[in-house]
Amino acid sequence: MMDKEITDDLIIKILEAGSWAPSGLNNQPWRFIIVKNPKIKKDLADCTKYGKIIKNAPVLIAVFFDQNKGYNRTKDMQAIGACIQNMLISIHAFNLGAVWLGEILNQREQVEKILAVPNSFELQAVLAIGHPTEAEKKNTSSRISLEKITWREKYGNSL
Amino acid sequence: MMDKEITDDLIIKILEAGSWAPSGLNNQPWRFIIVKNPKIKKDLADCTKYGKIIKNAPVLIAVFFDQNKGYNRTKDMQAIGACIQNMLISIHAFNLGAVWLGEILNQREQVEKILAVPNSFELQAVLAIGHPTEAEKKNTSSRISLEKITWREKYGNSL
Repeated sequence: MMDKEITDDLIIKILEAGSWAPSGLNNQPWRFIIVKNPKIKKDLADCTKYGKIIKNAPVLIAVFFDQNKGYNRTKDMQAIGACIQNMLISIHAFNLGAVWLGEILNQREQVEKILAVPNSFELQAVLAIGHPTEAEKKNTSSRISLEKITWREKYGNSL
Repeated sequence: MMDKEITDDLIIKILEAGSWAPSGLNNQPWRFIIVKNPKIKKDLADCTKYGKIIKNAPVLIAVFFDQNKGYNRTKDMQAIGACIQNMLISIHAFNLGAVWLGEILNQREQVEKILAVPNSFELQAVLAIGHPTEAEKKNTSSRISLEKITWREKYGNSL
């Protein structure tokens, strides 16, 4: 990703899109930390084998689950996923790109220490946001065909 | 919601949008059952206190997590949430509306029996899809202000 500036105005709009995700009981358990500071980025980069992505991204959004606001683990994680997806779609709509970093959860305690979050904040993901190159804009991902994952009325009746 | 027909073509497009959600290791753990049959809808309606919503919706999409495909519970639930959110956005883009039913998970074993799914399929949500009335199109939901859930660089530095 090229290191061009991403305005505060855009970051706020991305976070707003995330915050409008649905959540069970409308509990909105997501919390965000915006990271641009190079020293903090470097510290975070050391928490994942994808550190290069972190260092090269002009903006990171660290997404947390506030366990104090949770009511049902499955539904809370779904809500966090919906929130992240809203942000990814918003990022794409702004002609930006993002990498959803999940491997960093293996070092979540270290990340939580670096970002000085309260005990109730559990790291969920880090979004590394930037301006994608033409090569990065190409979708190289594949999908299982819908026929293999969908049925009609009951399991077994093929699509 | 008014009971007008929702074409198969639209349903497929909605499911495709869901299936393009990101997932950890691209494991795509979501599975779908489309329900239109009135008898099955009635049986499902008996599994939730929101049964009326189910009975009135022309189409249901029951979303499952295939535990055989899971690799990390937190990330798998996030992926399911991202998938559902993609479907909700797609539904909205088609001028339709949906209710994300989560309370029905309290009776998930009963739902899984009705839909005859394999043991590895865990109910995640039921989307009740229909044509929203003007009143239903109004957003009556509220949000915590971004200032209360976002910080800069580290926790404590206000937005």
